Amino acid sequence: MTTVRNTLAASSPGEATDWLPRAREDIGSACRALYQRGWMEGTSGNVSVSDGDVVVISASGRAKGRMTARDTVAVRLADGVPLPGESERPSAETSIHLAVYRATGADAAVIHAHSPYATALSARHERYTGPGSVLLERWELAKGLGMPEPDLVALPVFLNRSDVPRIAQEVTEHLGQADTRTPPALLIARHGLTVWGRDLDQARNRLECVEALCRLALLTDGHESGERYGGPA
Amino acid sequence: MTTVRNTLAASSPGEATDWLPRAREDIGSACRALYQRGWMEGTSGNVSVSDGDVVVISASGRAKGRMTARDTVAVRLADGVPLPGESERPSAETSIHLAVYRATGADAAVIHAHSPYATALSARHERYTGPGSVLLERWELAKGLGMPEPDLVALPVFLNRSDVPRIAQEVTEHLGQADTRTPPALLIARHGLTVWGRDLDQARNRLECVEALCRLALLTDGHESGERYGGPA
Amino acid sequence: MTTVRNTLAASSPGEATDWLPRAREDIGSACRALYQRGWMEGTSGNVSVSDGDVVVISASGRAKGRMTARDTVAVRLADGVPLPGESERPSAETSIHLAVYRATGADAAVIHAHSPYATALSARHERYTGPGSVLLERWELAKGLGMPEPDLVALPVFLNRSDVPRIAQEVTEHLGQADTRTPPALLIARHGLTVWGRDLDQARNRLECVEALCRLALLTDGHESGERYGGPA
Amino acid sequence: MTTVRNTLAASSPGEATDWLPRAREDIGSACRALYQRGWMEGTSGNVSVSDGDVVVISASGRAKGRMTARDTVAVRLADGVPLPGESERPSAETSIHLAVYRATGADAAVIHAHSPYATALSARHERYTGPGSVLLERWELAKGLGMPEPDLVALPVFLNRSDVPRIAQEVTEHLGQADTRTPPALLIARHGLTVWGRDLDQARNRLECVEALCRLALLTDGHESGERYGGPA
Repeated sequence: MTTVRNTLAASSPGEATDWLPRAREDIGSACRALYQRGWMEGTSGNVSVSDGDVVVISASGRAKGRMTARDTVAVRLADGVPLPGESERPSAETSIHLAVYRATGADAAVIHAHSPYATALSARHERYTGPGSVLLERWELAKGLGMPEPDLVALPVFLNRSDVPRIAQEVTEHLGQADTRTPPALLIARHGLTVWGRDLDQARNRLECVEALCRLALLTDGHESGERYGGPA
Repeated sequence: MTTVRNTLAASSPGEATDWLPRAREDIGSACRALYQRGWMEGTSGNVSVSDGDVVVISASGRAKGRMTARDTVAVRLADGVPLPGESERPSAETSIHLAVYRATGADAAVIHAHSPYATALSARHERYTGPGSVLLERWELAKGLGMPEPDLVALPVFLNRSDVPRIAQEVTEHLGQADTRTPPALLIARHGLTVWGRDLDQARNRLECVEALCRLALLTDGHESGERYGGPA
Repeated sequence: MTTVRNTLAASSPGEATDWLPRAREDIGSACRALYQRGWMEGTSGNVSVSDGDVVVISASGRAKGRMTARDTVAVRLADGVPLPGESERPSAETSIHLAVYRATGADAAVIHAHSPYATALSARHERYTGPGSVLLERWELAKGLGMPEPDLVALPVFLNRSDVPRIAQEVTEHLGQADTRTPPALLIARHGLTVWGRDLDQARNRLECVEALCRLALLTDGHESGERYGGPA
Repeated sequence: MTTVRNTLAASSPGEATDWLPRAREDIGSACRALYQRGWMEGTSGNVSVSDGDVVVISASGRAKGRMTARDTVAVRLADGVPLPGESERPSAETSIHLAVYRATGADAAVIHAHSPYATALSARHERYTGPGSVLLERWELAKGLGMPEPDLVALPVFLNRSDVPRIAQEVTEHLGQADTRTPPALLIARHGLTVWGRDLDQARNRLECVEALCRLALLTDGHESGERYGGPA
């Protein structure tokens, strides 16, 4: 947990010094790009990166289309407390980001988006199937998640709760039982999608793949309720 | 009503002097951005901001993709009459904007857009459910509307009429009975969506959330008529 | 027919001299913008403007995302023959543009696009309803077509034919019987949408409205075949 | 096979010398543009051009939104072996590109994309119809494929396999039996779309047409399974 990791795709020699300002810039840039796609409408969504000790995360309530480096806050991974000198309030969903970092250890970037197809699929799943996982079967794009067996991706659907730390606790329990078939992504019903990776570039690539997979599932199977999303009839 | 309010997100010291030209620029910029999203096709849609005495609104019949500060007109909040020196004709839907400002008091920006999912949802609702409100239940994105109980948003659907002042009158009656469960947004059936907020940024954030919610409702529930949009079966 | 008309939104003093090069630039710019929206995929679509004697039209087979002023050709309105010195081949659908100009007299810009919702609606209409008109009822956006009675727009659907001059002949017959209820737009089944106006800006505004109306019709009514698109049940 | 062909739309005098660096630039530019459309999410998709001896192809695992000329690799058309000095690993799907070049002889650019409508249509076809071809009938946009009889396009659907060379072998067999009715495009079920042409511009134009055709098929017919996609009922 205390190892300094390079969370950004390309590193510079002065990495240890430069990490924080660069992480802030990258979060701003990622938010603006994801807003442009319609996946972070209004002030929704949040993005973080971590070096294993510190987590930099988008501040609460900022419009994602106008995010800059200043709209971020650095907190301690251990307990989520802002570092000395930080003036912004961290995202209300910081505890979910922390849960992911603590459970995976190796991952260093988390993106939470309200992308339309993932959110709609989570709602259809909750309504017609109930708790459990959306099963995405035999989609080539699933290879973008980097799992050894991409032919069957079981994307877990968590209940949405106003008590965010309780969602975080359930994510912790889920990831505590993770094996190689556990995807680096999860849905929160009627809420959105959370995806993570070794750096922000990888997390974004994976986010794009999951949203595209959810769109494919809805385009292919969406009109038939209660079934696996993706498998042959 | 006569209090000068800062309708723009960031204020400058010379606010009292600068308000009007800046409001015009902001309206032009907002229209171009909303046109880019496909929410103000052709000359459709209108945007206004107010300081509590004056309302600046997009002029009638302008293509929203090419809007500039000059395509606006300043009118009196009290009666909608253009200020001396104004040469443009205000939007045909100015009376609805005035109704919102008069009823809410605290709000200072109104956006009316013909975004596709809100408009389609209003049409489906009118056809299958009749008058009343679209119920958006348990969507996380509804928190973007700033209401104390976002779990159930009852978005009212007004009849579309060629007599626009009559729509404005019905909006006035609706907002006259407003309580904390009244959202800062309304639908006009087969027409579009109107959203307001304390400034143009907030109104835009809310507009994005409502359009996204309507898209989610259609993606999740759209194929079943006559039901609540959002609730579990 | 011989009156010189200003086909562009803003005119300059040297209009008579400048008309042709400016028309070419405007056609290139409009094609690139419409390509960006996904309405002129590959080399599809064509755009023209006319001064009443001459028609400038996009050249045949050009990728619309890379159109420039040089990818246009000036032809005579009377017979479609290229002016002396023109080296490009006019669009294969020039005869339809000429038919519109001859029939309407007052209009000076025509856009033909393969926009997705208009094209899909034309195909659904042909399949389920047969020949005739798509009826778009009680949509506010229909006011963007500038008709005196926008509450009912009967958008004619022509059969697609490899014999383009025969389509042009049928368009001539249709517009020969035009009255105030005839919209400045038509569909060609499984093919696309043609829209016209007094200048390129107006034609574009109207095109945007018709495509949006077709999208609304599909979102609202698309799953029920054989019905009017728009009216209450 | 050894003829040097000009794979790019416009040639320069020093073509023989300049071909390779220019091909790399054009591949980077095409990938970025196709990513912008949402057709190459994450690291998915691949693009190649060939001069008849050498094939330049996107390197494996690169995010297509950030592709540059350096993210390409030149391989021998004969056996797919990288040229001396190449440091990148070619796309995992290089064998399919090579199969197309070898079979068609005259074509010099191949694009493989995971565009949403083509991919969803391939999945629906596999589920409801089984092996064979998606039949796209009487769509005007099909003329963009340059076939003599565009009224009926039989777009073959290949099974997706983790054994990519076996897909390539099946593509070789398919193209070995090609006649004038064989389109310059194919689907791989639950995977994506592959399109080719004489140069990158033509391949892109055709890709846009096929994706638009698949969207039209889904918008028009998508809710009825087991039928021809496009023909009248």
